[in-house]
Amino acid sequence: MSSEERLKTLGLSLPKVTSPAGNYVPALVDGSTVWTSGQLPLVDGSLIVTGAVGDGDGQIPIDRAQECARIAALNALAAMADACGGLNRIVRIVRVVGYVASAPGFVAQHSVINGASDLMVEVFGEAGKHTRSAVGVAALPLGAPVEIEVEARLR
Amino acid sequence: MSSEERLKTLGLSLPKVTSPAGNYVPALVDGSTVWTSGQLPLVDGSLIVTGAVGDGDGQIPIDRAQECARIAALNALAAMADACGGLNRIVRIVRVVGYVASAPGFVAQHSVINGASDLMVEVFGEAGKHTRSAVGVAALPLGAPVEIEVEARLR
Amino acid sequence: MSSEERLKTLGLSLPKVTSPAGNYVPALVDGSTVWTSGQLPLVDGSLIVTGAVGDGDGQIPIDRAQECARIAALNALAAMADACGGLNRIVRIVRVVGYVASAPGFVAQHSVINGASDLMVEVFGEAGKHTRSAVGVAALPLGAPVEIEVEARLR
Repeated sequence: MSSEERLKTLGLSLPKVTSPAGNYVPALVDGSTVWTSGQLPLVDGSLIVTGAVGDGDGQIPIDRAQECARIAALNALAAMADACGGLNRIVRIVRVVGYVASAPGFVAQHSVINGASDLMVEVFGEAGKHTRSAVGVAALPLGAPVEIEVEARLR
Repeated sequence: MSSEERLKTLGLSLPKVTSPAGNYVPALVDGSTVWTSGQLPLVDGSLIVTGAVGDGDGQIPIDRAQECARIAALNALAAMADACGGLNRIVRIVRVVGYVASAPGFVAQHSVINGASDLMVEVFGEAGKHTRSAVGVAALPLGAPVEIEVEARLR
Repeated sequence: MSSEERLKTLGLSLPKVTSPAGNYVPALVDGSTVWTSGQLPLVDGSLIVTGAVGDGDGQIPIDRAQECARIAALNALAAMADACGGLNRIVRIVRVVGYVASAPGFVAQHSVINGASDLMVEVFGEAGKHTRSAVGVAALPLGAPVEIEVEARLR
């Protein structure tokens, strides 16, 4: 099954790519590589939730943060597909960096970023297995809880 | 107009590259790629300001932080030019990562990093449009408010 | 002397690579490049220390944090060697990103990451000199004080 077929089987479709507000691009192809800008959990142009991830009152619980990582990763797939002419050109997800806006004491950034990693493997199979870094940061643009950056190889 | 000519038109010149204090290099060429180390807003070897970016008393306001991003980006251009034999060898800015030391509640990291992105486009035109991640962090070396890392393609 | 011989001379050996807990890989080879996932200061599968780096009570002092960076870098070497067929295939360390979980006021992330940079040069000589970013973050997975990510070129 192709990655585009797998995406359909998962009941997912690629969202419209949000235009950057600054002098940069959502994704860029150079040679046989595609990179994305850091992608946020935007749906229809709005963040699905804002704040820091943690276990406390008013903080974003881990399952919701995983959903954010999954949505940001889906936005990364959309940006890559748009830049390179379709998901089926991608032969390997090479690298994922996942930033998690973290409340004091929160140290399960790896669990949050599994939301992105799992989507990559659901869509690309073994070719979706990547290197990755999961990092807990002070804050992200617009109050986003998660930001996902991807590098992939093209056929 | 070449990128070196554009830089002059902007009234800018490439600063002297600061020698790293450790076992690393300011920039490195391998094949047709050049990478920079994380660059700080240093002028003549000193940070122009230290602290966290935010709206509060004693914090660095956003316009000053944008200036820091622009200076760090200019240092990145200098490091790349030094490593590859001149700005005119650069045919595309591929990727920018911008770290912003962020006071609690500050979520406009993207606006700060526009200071770097805008410089890239002023100097390289369309070829200066890159992928980028803007991230709010706890602190940066020596108390720098901004750190900028760049990857570019060479002719 | 080869890098594998230098490693022996240093009294070091490559540790066993820890299997990732998620849908990703410790390191990945594509073409003539090898990337690692973010590596933590794990020995025999456990973090040697947890917490934030700083000068205060209960914080991790800088010399201990440098040791963490060195161990994480050794884990990165092991992951790369495992993925590419041995350290001797590596001809250049291209890029190191070092994240440091930082207590308030700590701004010597560069000194901490020297623990990783120095190891690279001890093992690879001049070819171990890389570009690098040192960044102070809120927290890292499992409470790790340091996380190290590496990109290298293969013969």
